[in-house]
Amino acid sequence: MWSGSSLGMSPAELIARKRDGQPHTYAEIEFLIRGIASGAIPDYQAAAWLMAVCIRGMTAAETAWLTQAMAASGEMLDLQARWPNVVDKHSTGGVGDKTSLVLMPALAACGCRVAKMSGRGLGFSGGTIDKLESIPGLRTDLSRQEFLDQVDRIGIAIVSQSADLAPADGKLYALRDVTATVDSLPLIASSIMSKKLALRAGRLVLDVKAGRGAFMKSVEEAQALAEAMVAIGRASGVKTTAVVSDMSQPEGRAIGNALEVREAIETLQGRGPEDVLELCSALAKALEVDGVEKAIQSGAAFERFRSMVEAQGGEAGALDRLPGARQRCEWPAQRSGWLAGIDAELLGRAAVALGAGRSRKDDEIDSAVGFVLRAKIGDWVEAGQPLLEVHANDHSKLAQVLAGVPAAYQISELPVKAPELVKAIISPS
Amino acid sequence: MWSGSSLGMSPAELIARKRDGQPHTYAEIEFLIRGIASGAIPDYQAAAWLMAVCIRGMTAAETAWLTQAMAASGEMLDLQARWPNVVDKHSTGGVGDKTSLVLMPALAACGCRVAKMSGRGLGFSGGTIDKLESIPGLRTDLSRQEFLDQVDRIGIAIVSQSADLAPADGKLYALRDVTATVDSLPLIASSIMSKKLALRAGRLVLDVKAGRGAFMKSVEEAQALAEAMVAIGRASGVKTTAVVSDMSQPEGRAIGNALEVREAIETLQGRGPEDVLELCSALAKALEVDGVEKAIQSGAAFERFRSMVEAQGGEAGALDRLPGARQRCEWPAQRSGWLAGIDAELLGRAAVALGAGRSRKDDEIDSAVGFVLRAKIGDWVEAGQPLLEVHANDHSKLAQVLAGVPAAYQISELPVKAPELVKAIISPS
Repeated sequence: MWSGSSLGMSPAELIARKRDGQPHTYAEIEFLIRGIASGAIPDYQAAAWLMAVCIRGMTAAETAWLTQAMAASGEMLDLQARWPNVVDKHSTGGVGDKTSLVLMPALAACGCRVAKMSGRGLGFSGGTIDKLESIPGLRTDLSRQEFLDQVDRIGIAIVSQSADLAPADGKLYALRDVTATVDSLPLIASSIMSKKLALRAGRLVLDVKAGRGAFMKSVEEAQALAEAMVAIGRASGVKTTAVVSDMSQPEGRAIGNALEVREAIETLQGRGPEDVLELCSALAKALEVDGVEKAIQSGAAFERFRSMVEAQGGEAGALDRLPGARQRCEWPAQRSGWLAGIDAELLGRAAVALGAGRSRKDDEIDSAVGFVLRAKIGDWVEAGQPLLEVHANDHSKLAQVLAGVPAAYQISELPVKAPELVKAIISPS
Repeated sequence: MWSGSSLGMSPAELIARKRDGQPHTYAEIEFLIRGIASGAIPDYQAAAWLMAVCIRGMTAAETAWLTQAMAASGEMLDLQARWPNVVDKHSTGGVGDKTSLVLMPALAACGCRVAKMSGRGLGFSGGTIDKLESIPGLRTDLSRQEFLDQVDRIGIAIVSQSADLAPADGKLYALRDVTATVDSLPLIASSIMSKKLALRAGRLVLDVKAGRGAFMKSVEEAQALAEAMVAIGRASGVKTTAVVSDMSQPEGRAIGNALEVREAIETLQGRGPEDVLELCSALAKALEVDGVEKAIQSGAAFERFRSMVEAQGGEAGALDRLPGARQRCEWPAQRSGWLAGIDAELLGRAAVALGAGRSRKDDEIDSAVGFVLRAKIGDWVEAGQPLLEVHANDHSKLAQVLAGVPAAYQISELPVKAPELVKAIISPS
């Protein structure tokens, strides 16, 4: 059995303190995270502590310390020391969220440095890395040196997140997943922010999504998470702003990896959906970066995107050769009226069923499949008018999805307003 | 990863239910205990669940179901079906607690069947089995058949608790010990009662001790535990009464294994301390057994004790050859006054330091060492009068204990009343 450290702390005593609702000191949290990361503190003690945290909560100071201790558990890269104008962005995830693919090249075109590590999709929400990898030849597994050199050279790189980044978070997350301790504001906030602190930018914007298609179902919950993360940024010297944005319906019109890349390209060419553009503007404003709309209109943002694709190994003409699905099918409105609801979570899960995402971590994904929305909330639709395109590569999956899709749609006899996109902005001070 | 059962339950879902303060069903608790006992539910999930129980609590029904599920996790022996007049007794443990050694033979002498499994000491409170084993030759590891045959033949057997009894409790207890989940009323109550249900008697009396020398420091806590256990008995068809008794000072005058056996024999011969006799009477009354005082006065109870010692292998004349310590030393009162406090926990720990108990599960114990109190709370003592005899086998331990003992004593210039022994009685209905 584990018998304490030179600091004279015992895991059981620290667990008891949190069980009784008492706050931890920085030294206690560092001791716990170090022990959990090294395996000196066994999983069952970590699990008991996580449950106590889940029920008793953590103060803002404890949450910041937890984040810092997890960030310090692995490799740390101070991007800001290298590039004073480096910016970073994180989305809590949603259905059809392709904002990073538009915003980051636009920020680079405005003179910011973008050295971004992104995640893969899991569950019903997609991931930027899966989307990028639908581009033929494109690599996201750059070495550390390739990554930094590319940002030096063309101002932007988006690569997959290193396993060396905040490894304690990875270990805790795996344990939370099987011990019913995922739903905890300080644990969620510190998990996200630990990776942002390990790869430290000077300015960070958080897109915290709220609604059926997001992890946080209500604006209130999303706002609380946003505030917790902004407070961690403040306590850790990263200027952090959060935008709480609507995820009651999917973002833009495309859902699925190659379909979303195509929509991002259209947006970078000035032909994209309004909401994607509006969200990019709001996020840029939160970063206090001017001119992203102009960079998009002028084509400079798209040029930056193309340079990035080329630098990361994208084949010549790759953007014109995105994978397409063999079957395409339109699902029509069953009656006329105002479109009142599109269940983003249901469509997200349906996209996973088509093969666009993973049910398990090691599932292969199909880049070509997904949906294109032909109408959004607030639109008037006529009976028989196509509401949704389904892109599939498998007849039985297509049939299964078509049977489930009607449940995602609500049509009203009374006019319905489109939901407001930006729900709240949480500023750093 | 574990993927649920035919009942469609997943451990993580059940943990989440308790995390959110919702009560479990019987089927859920049975599923959890079965999984924990078999190892199908890993320790980290069990630990998270225990912490949720510790913080959220359990209803009386859940506590009874937990107890029943733990009892059913191993061998079950229905003593009442075999002997309608079988009785059982359990003490939550204290310093100098030799009640079982007096009460159980007296009950047998009154015509009850006594088929008792007892525990060993751990921490500052002793255990009946360690005390019995100070008698030369006496065995406590009888086979199941030897145990039952002896009760058939002479009406009484006291043996060490079988590891096959409520094994789920053993597993949970080990985990609670290292995850700061020991202090939980439903977990404590179910742990004790699971072993009582596995070895089911028709009537059960619980001696729940309250005070410095007990696990429950206040009468209120002891009463709450007593009520929880009586409720489990009621829900499980065992007629259970609890006596909440004082443990602000040690019970009787002797502390230490052979010293306590000697005091028990003196009590069985009508020459013991009043409080031990008073407690035995109260416990017998709670069991609705008349005549234990008479059985003690007549010598019938002592005869029954002697028969048990002989039946369990005690050597001829064993009771006259109990081990004695090489060093005996008296500690005198530093000033005159009324004895106002004797810290039972401190003396219990000091006895362990002398070798009378275990710091770790596999420590050897020294049967001969311990203390004899020469005065108790409420007595007038003169400066220089011996307050305590120390029995030791090691000079350095003796010196260490003599240095610590003064802190256990309080002497007052004002008269002090002896504490009342019986604090409360919790009846079964």
